[in-house]
This record gives sequence, structure tokens and C-alpha cells, in this order.
Amino acid sequence: MKRTAFFISDGTGITAEALGQSLLAQFENVEFDKFTVPYIDTPEKARSVVKRINDVAKRDGLRPIIFDTIVNREIRELVSDVDGFMIDIFETFLDPLEKEMGSNSSYTVGKSHSIVNDRSYERRIHAVNFALDNDDGARTRHYDDADLILIGASRSGKTPTCLYLALHFGLKAANYPITEEDISDQKLPAALREHRSKLFGLTIDPERLSIIRNERRPNSRYSSLKQCREEIEEVELMYRRERVPYLNTTAYSVEEISTRIMVETGIERHAR
Amino acid sequence: MKRTAFFISDGTGITAEALGQSLLAQFENVEFDKFTVPYIDTPEKARSVVKRINDVAKRDGLRPIIFDTIVNREIRELVSDVDGFMIDIFETFLDPLEKEMGSNSSYTVGKSHSIVNDRSYERRIHAVNFALDNDDGARTRHYDDADLILIGASRSGKTPTCLYLALHFGLKAANYPITEEDISDQKLPAALREHRSKLFGLTIDPERLSIIRNERRPNSRYSSLKQCREEIEEVELMYRRERVPYLNTTAYSVEEISTRIMVETGIERHAR
Repeated sequence: MKRTAFFISDGTGITAEALGQSLLAQFENVEFDKFTVPYIDTPEKARSVVKRINDVAKRDGLRPIIFDTIVNREIRELVSDVDGFMIDIFETFLDPLEKEMGSNSSYTVGKSHSIVNDRSYERRIHAVNFALDNDDGARTRHYDDADLILIGASRSGKTPTCLYLALHFGLKAANYPITEEDISDQKLPAALREHRSKLFGLTIDPERLSIIRNERRPNSRYSSLKQCREEIEEVELMYRRERVPYLNTTAYSVEEISTRIMVETGIERHAR
Repeated sequence: MKRTAFFISDGTGITAEALGQSLLAQFENVEFDKFTVPYIDTPEKARSVVKRINDVAKRDGLRPIIFDTIVNREIRELVSDVDGFMIDIFETFLDPLEKEMGSNSSYTVGKSHSIVNDRSYERRIHAVNFALDNDDGARTRHYDDADLILIGASRSGKTPTCLYLALHFGLKAANYPITEEDISDQKLPAALREHRSKLFGLTIDPERLSIIRNERRPNSRYSSLKQCREEIEEVELMYRRERVPYLNTTAYSVEEISTRIMVETGIERHAR
């Protein structure tokens, strides 16, 4: 069975999409064709998306599932007049929240992913720059300033994780690759020793690492399963010996790796 | 008035947080203290978070607002036994969705931000590597492979936008800085001319640009308002002359810039 789903918003659509994905993922036996439609913020755009959805309903012979986070009431009403099954997030939750808060909502569009709080937004952008400047052990002199230093073998997931931690959470995360020389030394590289409390190790199954490395440098010693096995074994040994907390990233997305690192290190998500 | 809010999940908590932020942002006259609590996936953790919330309720003299995306029913029931105002997302929407779908949900935890669909996850990670390899005009020989090439004056927001487009949407976005030499040439740099259809320009108010540049190189010619004014004027002139679509990023977050670029260029968000 295949159903079409729309995530509709008068803002970026990021919230509608996240919620919709999360709910639809619970229906494993249904295949979904999913579309995100942001910035539906005029009656014209509302009518045009209604037409589009109605066309799909006709084509599919099944009404589409619609998740919407449209704040504007007039637009929301226009969109609700559609041949679809609506999950209307503001309609559902704003009323009870207003009662609880004893206060009216402001019905302002696009609050959640805008520069509401300038300082926390700036913190995120600074953190991205920090991650780029301190990627791959490029510099170690800014480690005093880091919230976190990710270490691990080449291609174990350090860089995307640092960037996600920066973009999403505003954390300054540096990363340092553990090389063969570091391993043969059998101890923490000198640059890391004085920042022990900020270290977090990543590891990964050698089989997966070998596949990832082969995409970069096919059929090299660097990518060989033998080399990956040796490096990972030594790196994990170092983590245990030096008591560096670590995580195997093989089965996890950057979102999950980032969240787990924050839980493990006790960095609280005190949301913006 | 100040209220405490909790975003609770047995997964990463990213969905609960996005939805909660989005709804709370509608109450502009209320100040919120917000906490995200992920991986509440055992009865012990559930009891511990209940205790934490009850303590806050006592301290505040007002019950906290709780947004939860806990999939597991047993855990959800434990958490709902709390002195708080619950917005329970799965409780609210799964039943009607099951009816509509004529199918039971699988109640599987942590679907939405896990590596559900391996291929689309890999695409995102490849896109991050692409963005890093093709940042700041470092290389132009991979532009054939790019979905998009962002251009603009130094510090107008290209790099964070490329990284967001990659991490969130899996788009391969390169970026190329328009330098003074390019401007004095009065035409598109040679490396860009053959990729005209992929170009998207960023611009920014000179006053804002000068502030951002001053953080990097204080009191330099590069950061001076005069220099920023001249560069932005010339860059915008080039966009118009060369018919490159462009966006002023001054008031927008990376989420909004990315979404607007995708709308403008017609790149559809066909969600994972």
C-alpha cells in the first residue's frame, strides 16, 4: 500500500516535517511518498496547494495524509478544505495551551526556525566556524575554548557529528584524528592530554569503516579490512586504557550520535 | 511570568523539541525555561524524570509544560503520572492515524532520527563531505556534480548554509566567494560561467556584514563599512546583470535561507 503525505507550513516546514516523519515511521507496512511544502503564507498559495493535494487524492484513489503547522487561521482554514486527512498541530494544541497559560498566543508565523533569539543563533554560527577551524586536528591551540573534542580513527564520523553539534546545539566541538603514529605511541597524543575532560571517543565496526574508506581511497592499504581492524582495536584499547568515554557509531545517525554524546558527557540541552 | 517546559522522548528528543519550541514560541509574553530529556527508555529513567518534573513544579509553584514523543506505552504511562501539563503527541495522533491507515502502528522507538533509510542517510553524509571539499571556492572541478553553487561576498552566510543543506536535505552544495578581483572584472568568474543554472547568490546588509567581519578581523580594511558597502553594491549589481537569483540573508536563519533557496530554485523537498 502506498500513501502520499504532505508536510505543510507557513514557515520553513521543518517542524511539520519532523513530526510527520516521526508519526509515519510508526507505520512500517505502509509506503509513503512524502512532500514538504513550506511558506504557504498567502490565500493564493493555500488554494494552489489544495488543488495539488486534491489532484493527488484523485490519482491515488486515497486521500493524502497532511501534517500542517500553519499559524495563520485564515490560511489554515483554506487548507483544511481539502480532500485529505489533516493532522493540524496548531489547531489541536494551541487552545489547550492557551487555557493552561491563561494567555493568548500571538499567532506569529515562523517563530521556531527564525532568528528569534539572536544570541543563541549567533552561538550556533560561531560554533560552525569553530568546528571548521578545528576540524581534523588542524589546530589544537583553541582547545581551551572547546566544549568537546571528538577523537577517533579517520572516517569514524567525527566531522559530521561536530558540524551537527554546532549547527543544531551551538556546541563548540573540535575533532582530532587518532593516527597510526598516535596508536604506536600507546598513549594519548600530547595535544590532547591537557584536555582530557573534554575528550569523547568514536569507534566503528571495522567492516563498515573499510566500506566508507574504500569510497575515498579504493583498494588502498588505508581502506583494507586488515588495516581498519588493527586501527579500531588499538583505538578502543587506548580509550579504555585512558578512560575516555566512547561510542560505537556504526548503527547511529549523526542526530543519534550527537544526542548520545550529550547524554554521556552530561552536557544538558537547555533549549534556546 | 516564567514557566518551565520539558521536551521528553525515548529517542533523540529532536521532534518533541521542534514541536514544543514551535508551539511555545506563540506565547510571546511568557518566558520559558526549556529542557530536553532524550532516551527515556526504561521505567527507571521514567521515574527519575517524573521526580525531576515534580520537584520543578513544587519550586515554580506552577506545573511544567511537557511535550513528549515517547512511543512505548508503558513508559508513556509512567511519565504521564506527573504534576505537569502534558502535550502527548503519540497519544493524540497515533489513534486517528491508525484508523485512517487501517493498520496498526509498530510502536518502534526512535524511528525518525535513526538510519531508517540507509541510502538517504548516506546521501546526507556524502553531501556534508562534498560541502567541505568544495567550500570557499577551494575546488571548482567538482561543480558538475553539485546540486547548487552558492556565491556571495566573504561572510555572507554561504558556508553554514551549504552545511545545513547537506546535513538536513542531502543536497550537494558548493560555495564560491566573490572576491574584489571578480567584481572589478564586472562579470561572472570563469569557473562559474558554465554552471550558470546552478548558481544562487547570497547578499547581506553592509552594516551587518561589517559587524560579522569585524569579529574575524577587527578594524581592518576588509571589515570596514565602506569596503562592505562597495562589495555588496557590486555583488548585487553582478547578480542582476547576470540574472543570478539571490537572497538577502540579513534577517534569516540558516534554516530559513536553506528553505527559501530550495523554494526559489524549485528543488523539491521530497522527504526521506
